[in-house]
Order: sequence, then C-alpha cells, then structure tokens
Amino acid sequence: MKKLFAEFFGTFWLVFGGCGSAIFAAGYPDLGIGFVGVALAFGLTVLTMAYAVGHISGGHFNPAVSFGLWAGGKFDAKDLVGYILAQLIGAFVAAGALYLIITNKSDFVTIGGFAANGYDALSPDGYSMTAALIAEFLLTMFFLLIILGSTNERAPKGFAPIAIGLGLTLIHLISIPITNTSVNPARSTSQAIFAGGEFTSQLWLFWVAPIAGALVAGFIHKALFDKE
Amino acid sequence: MKKLFAEFFGTFWLVFGGCGSAIFAAGYPDLGIGFVGVALAFGLTVLTMAYAVGHISGGHFNPAVSFGLWAGGKFDAKDLVGYILAQLIGAFVAAGALYLIITNKSDFVTIGGFAANGYDALSPDGYSMTAALIAEFLLTMFFLLIILGSTNERAPKGFAPIAIGLGLTLIHLISIPITNTSVNPARSTSQAIFAGGEFTSQLWLFWVAPIAGALVAGFIHKALFDKE
Amino acid sequence: MKKLFAEFFGTFWLVFGGCGSAIFAAGYPDLGIGFVGVALAFGLTVLTMAYAVGHISGGHFNPAVSFGLWAGGKFDAKDLVGYILAQLIGAFVAAGALYLIITNKSDFVTIGGFAANGYDALSPDGYSMTAALIAEFLLTMFFLLIILGSTNERAPKGFAPIAIGLGLTLIHLISIPITNTSVNPARSTSQAIFAGGEFTSQLWLFWVAPIAGALVAGFIHKALFDKE
Amino acid sequence: MKKLFAEFFGTFWLVFGGCGSAIFAAGYPDLGIGFVGVALAFGLTVLTMAYAVGHISGGHFNPAVSFGLWAGGKFDAKDLVGYILAQLIGAFVAAGALYLIITNKSDFVTIGGFAANGYDALSPDGYSMTAALIAEFLLTMFFLLIILGSTNERAPKGFAPIAIGLGLTLIHLISIPITNTSVNPARSTSQAIFAGGEFTSQLWLFWVAPIAGALVAGFIHKALFDKE
Repeated sequence: MKKLFAEFFGTFWLVFGGCGSAIFAAGYPDLGIGFVGVALAFGLTVLTMAYAVGHISGGHFNPAVSFGLWAGGKFDAKDLVGYILAQLIGAFVAAGALYLIITNKSDFVTIGGFAANGYDALSPDGYSMTAALIAEFLLTMFFLLIILGSTNERAPKGFAPIAIGLGLTLIHLISIPITNTSVNPARSTSQAIFAGGEFTSQLWLFWVAPIAGALVAGFIHKALFDKE
Repeated sequence: MKKLFAEFFGTFWLVFGGCGSAIFAAGYPDLGIGFVGVALAFGLTVLTMAYAVGHISGGHFNPAVSFGLWAGGKFDAKDLVGYILAQLIGAFVAAGALYLIITNKSDFVTIGGFAANGYDALSPDGYSMTAALIAEFLLTMFFLLIILGSTNERAPKGFAPIAIGLGLTLIHLISIPITNTSVNPARSTSQAIFAGGEFTSQLWLFWVAPIAGALVAGFIHKALFDKE
Repeated sequence: MKKLFAEFFGTFWLVFGGCGSAIFAAGYPDLGIGFVGVALAFGLTVLTMAYAVGHISGGHFNPAVSFGLWAGGKFDAKDLVGYILAQLIGAFVAAGALYLIITNKSDFVTIGGFAANGYDALSPDGYSMTAALIAEFLLTMFFLLIILGSTNERAPKGFAPIAIGLGLTLIHLISIPITNTSVNPARSTSQAIFAGGEFTSQLWLFWVAPIAGALVAGFIHKALFDKE
Repeated sequence: MKKLFAEFFGTFWLVFGGCGSAIFAAGYPDLGIGFVGVALAFGLTVLTMAYAVGHISGGHFNPAVSFGLWAGGKFDAKDLVGYILAQLIGAFVAAGALYLIITNKSDFVTIGGFAANGYDALSPDGYSMTAALIAEFLLTMFFLLIILGSTNERAPKGFAPIAIGLGLTLIHLISIPITNTSVNPARSTSQAIFAGGEFTSQLWLFWVAPIAGALVAGFIHKALFDKE
C-alpha cells in the first residue's frame, strides 16, 4: 500500500511539474522557460521523487517503466495493475490541480492543448504518425535501457535517479517538437482527458509505442547487459 | 549558536542569489537569464549551502521547512523560534545588500517589485488568490516530501542536497508566473519589506500556504513513508 | 561482444540525442532549445549511457576517447578496431533513424546540414580551418584529461559520468559556433554521410584533430597525473 | 610540481571554457547561449577539472581560492606563490588560445572586451565601483564558504566539485550584468591584458575585492564552522 501511495505522489508530481511548467511558464513573453525549461522540469520531477520515494516503490511513475522493468525481470507481474492504477490516478488528480490553477487566471479563456501529446495536426511541429511511432518507441526504449542499466547492481550506487531524471530531460530536449514528448502513457492519458477532442483519439499511440519500446529494452537488457 | 549562524548565512545566500539573479539578470536585453536562470539560481543557492553547512544546521533556510521537519518528527519544536529568527535576519540583510547594489546602478530609478511575491494584480501573469493558495500549498508540500524522503535513512547517502536544490529549481520552473514563487516565508518577507505597498498586505498568504503545505507533508511522510 | 553492443547503443544514443536535439528542437520558433539545449543534450547522452553501460564497456562512444584511453594506458590496442567499428555503426544507424523521423515531417524539404561539422563556409559562425583545428584539438585534449582524471582510482568513486557528461556539455557551450562541435569522429562521420557535399570533404579534420588531442592528453595524463 | 601542472591546466580550462563560451557563443543570433550558458560554462570548467585533478592539487584554479583556503587553515602559505603563478600562466595561455581562434574568424574586426571584467562604464549594465566592490566581495566570500564547507570532513564525500562548480554557475547567474563576474583575479588579469585600455586600470578591484572576500570567508569558516 505504501508503494501505491509513493507511485501516486510521484506521478502526481511528474504531471503537475512537467505539464505545469509547460502550461504556466513555457510561453511567458521574453522571460519564459521554453522547451529547455520544460525538459528540465520533467526530468527534475523524476530525479526528485526518485530520491524521495524511490526506496519505497522503486520510483516508476510511468506504466511503460513498470512494463519495461517486468520485461527486464526486475518487477513482479502481479504488481503491474496496482502500480498502473496508482499512476493513472496520480496523473489525473495532478491534471485536475493544474486545471484548477489555470482557470483562476485573470485572462483565462480556454485550456487549449493542456500539454497533451499528439501527431499529425496535433504535433507541435507537424510530424506524422510514423515519425511519432518511431520517436516514442526509440526514446522509451533508451529510457528503459538507462533505468535498467543505472540501477543494475554493477552500476555506481545512488546515482540512478540522476541518470534517469536527466535522461528524461534529454528525451524532452529531443522530442517536444515531434509529439510534445510522452514516453509515459499515464502523463498522456491525464492530459488527453482534459484537452479532449482529437487528443483522445490519438491517445492509443502513446500507450502502444512507449510500452513496446519499454518491453524491447527489457528484453535487450536481460539478454545482453544483466549479470546472468 | 553555530546552527543559527549556518541558517543566517544559508538564508542570506538564498535571497541574495535567488532574488538577486531575478533583479540583476533576468530581464537583461537579449542575453538575460529569464525564468530558467532564476529557477536555476534559487535551486543552486540551496544545493550549495546544503553541502556547505547542511551538516551543521540541517540546512533549512526557510521557516516552512523548519515547520515541516517538525511535523515530520525530524526537528525539535524548541529550536523553531531561533531558526526562524536567524532565517528572517539572513533574508533581511540579503535584501539590504541587493538594495545597496541596485541603487548603485547608473540608470537606477525605482526598486520596483524587488522580486517580491504576489497574487491578483501582483501576480506576474495575473493569477488569483485562489490559484496562489493552491500553488504555494501544493509546491511547498512536495518540497517537504522531497526533503523528508531524500534525507530519510533509507535514501542514498549524500545526494539529498542535489534532490532538494534541484527540487527548488523545479518549483520555480513551474510557478514563477503564478506568484513569483515563494514556498519560503522568509524570502517573501524580506522582499515585501523593501517592495512595500500592496506587497506587504499580501504577505500573509506566503506564510499561511507554505507552512500549511509543509505541515501536511510532514504528517504524510510520518504516516506513510517514514521507517516506523 | 557485450562490450561492442554497449558501445553501439551508447554511440547511437549520443548521435540520436545530441544531433537529434539540434535537428528537431534547436531552432523551433520562440520556444526552441538553442545551443544551450543542444549542449545539454549531447552531455546528457554520455552521462546517461555512462551510468547505464559504462560498467560494461567503459562507455567510450567515441573513437577519439578510445585512442586517448589507449595512449593513457587504460585501454588495450587490440580492442581499438572493434570498439571503433561498433561506434561508427551505432552513429550511422542513429543518423538513419533521425533521417526517417525528419523526412516524416509535414513541411519537410531538405535535410540541410543535418548537424554535421564543418569549417570555413561550413562553420556556423565563419571560423577558418586553423581555428577549427585549434579548437577541436584543445577541446578533445581537455575532454580526455577530464575522462582520465575523473576515472582515476584516486578520484571520488561513481562521479565520473557526471564530470564527463557535463564536460561534453561544456565543450558544446564553447564551440558550436566554431565547428558545430565534434570532438568525436564517429558523430562527425555519420552526419557527414547524410549531409553529403562539402561536409564529406571536410571530414578529415574531425578525425585528425580530435584524435591528436586525445593522444596528447593520454600522454600528459600518463606522464603527470597517473599514479605511477 | 604535479600540483602546479594541475593548477595550470585547471585555470587554462576555466578561462578557455568560461570566457570562450562568452566570446564565441553568448551573442550568437537567436540560438546563442546568453548569460545562462556562460554561467553554466564557467561552473562546469571547475566541476570537471575538480573531478579530474582536484585529487592532485586541491583544484583551486583561482588566487582568491588559494588565499581563502590559507585563511581557513587548509593551505600552506609557502605554496601560495607557486600556485598563483601557475594559475596566472594558465589563464594567460588560455586567453592567447582564445585570441588565436577568434582572430581566425572570417568577419573578425576587433577583440572588444574579450570577456574582461569592469565597473562604471565597463560594467555590462552600468553598475558603479561601489556596487562592483560589494558584489565581488560578497560573492567570493560565499564561494569560499561553499568550498570550505563542502570539502569539510563532515560533509558528504565526493560531492564537493558539484557544489563548488555549480556554486560558480550561480555566482555568474547573479552578477554577469554587474561586473561580467570575476571572483577570480587570474581570470580577470588574463582578459584585461588582451582587452587593454580601461580594463587594465580597473583590474585592481578584481584582485582586492575577491581576495578580501575570500580571506573573510576563511576566518568565518575557521571560527564558526570548522571542526576545531
């Protein structure tokens, strides 16, 4: 139960911090944080909560991570459903908190894309579904290779949250223009629910591609890099 | 006594570095550091002084942190007043030093907002009191969850200042447009004193919301994540 | 064999992440990541994969690094060819993946420079061949001094990937305007192949200067700073 | 002798990387790194070389640091002259290398300020001599408090280069607009020599204020925070 609370708070923070920085601060005139700031924010949500509650739940905060750790032999299949539910609830509550804040802005009109993920017309820079599939697959695959490698018992102890958090920052530096960067079905789902419209009909890709990439990484790590 | 000096110097540095970067460097034409630079500066004040004097005083530099650590069972109530006084004095002296520097600028006219915190008309991007209350409460709550979690005996040793400092950076990346980001009543008080006017009449919120969030985090950590 | 796979994946990630961030995100209007973001991305590719697979292959991801470690007495000459081939294949496959993504952009016309390296007319800011030679030589020399020094047995354990990764970030902060920053013949080769034209005829410099700088650093470290 | 070489290379890198990033990359149109990038570059020169050669010489790379460590009882007075000479030579050779590169730029006309430090008319944003004295004194004082505190035996082991390097980044985030940020007489001297003119007649301040601040920090640390 403590583990599920840890996943709830961690995923809340990921969505509140990552998507929140995008919604509130990215486009502020002249002084806004831009994609660099959003990339940093997403990564730091994971870095901070991995140090804070990683020793309790493992610090997944992401259904694709839970699947990838299972494929890599580091997570028990029977815990998958509980973890993913806690992640989805945390993400949804965070999106609600963001909604509450943004609707209390003096010039608020519409929530717009609400930092949701998309391709084709909903890609920030006009990338197709094919580009989105390749990018989300590869980026989540490498995200899991970083997670599985840096938490391996032969890696230096204690540094994994830095590698994983800054790895997520790196992933955003590459791909915000492509899909607004998901690599995390929970983060995509919560934002699509609030953004609505076309965003919900594109949501399937942000479950399929990240989880496929994560599974492949799990198998690669097990076959090539794990101690056995 | 050494502890109080450590808190004095640490809070001086937090205000001098964080608010100073905002006042001197954020809006410099073309090359200015913007909100990303200010967010980085605030976080690095805490990261650096937590490594420098954290082993002496615990490195709070913030009344809300002292309250939250008390609620979490990690700080003695009898030390609260001393710590908070040292923090307030450090913040005030730092604001004085910033004032001395900015008034020695060739084209100096008025100190303006002086990096003070505010809502409604004083919110950088027009967020209401409700938005400010929610944001400051939630952000300070997570700040304390990060502090309590990363300093827990089961967390990796030595990394807490990185998690906590970069956690403060993250908090600024999210919320500078909302309230100019407080999560720290000492930092809000010193700047409101120099900014004056409406800023002082809004100061209550930057005591109430951060301390409330910190207390809730302390109770959550104690109930859910601490070893007992 | 595991080592070669580690070098393949690591160099793939370096090119996909570093060059990818430049191609997709650097020049995005208003919110783009600029040279700071690209510098951060290159550094984080190395930081993340050095934590993930550094304990398997040593985490070179760069022919100049392999040469420099050989000169410093830390890498066996008989492994040079295998490592460099794995690095070149990883870089080439990554450039192919970037090509696949960018050609699936709605307004795609031409791949342009594709983050390739160059001097004279191909230098981002008009630096001559002499400037490029000096810069690439010195920067790779210091890159290797950082690698050899931070992995030395007297250096603090576990921190080398941070020093090395952020060292590569620093190198890009200095020199993107000069040569688009190589210090890595594999990264230069993969991008020159796709960029074509003049870029391929300038490729020699991005093998000669980095490897020369790396060799000199290896000899300096061995003579001055190593334990013997 | 190894120590002097370490100080030579470290200070070369500090000037080449920090001032080089400012000269080559800060003002590049649209994509330039700005003050945030320069601040990051200065900090990373120290972070990287402190991990690389800190275990050899202590990693000062700065006459004010050597003075401050002496005042704090951590450095022998008889080594002061040798260290400072090695630092000055390293800084001067680095400035020469920067000169060689910038004069090999196609549209090179004049070296301008060459990242030198100044006040009054030579302050980037018009700060007076008084403002410069206060800022350089306070910032160097805190730089030394960070150095002395994070290398203290009660601080976590191995993290000092992160605290010190990012401390220098923070210092630049605050004060580039004031004096172009010195806190380092060697860095000021090498750039003033190449910039010439008024910059050399203002050089005294960038010896006096940083060394005074460093000495005060040394005495504070010894009296309040050191183990004795």
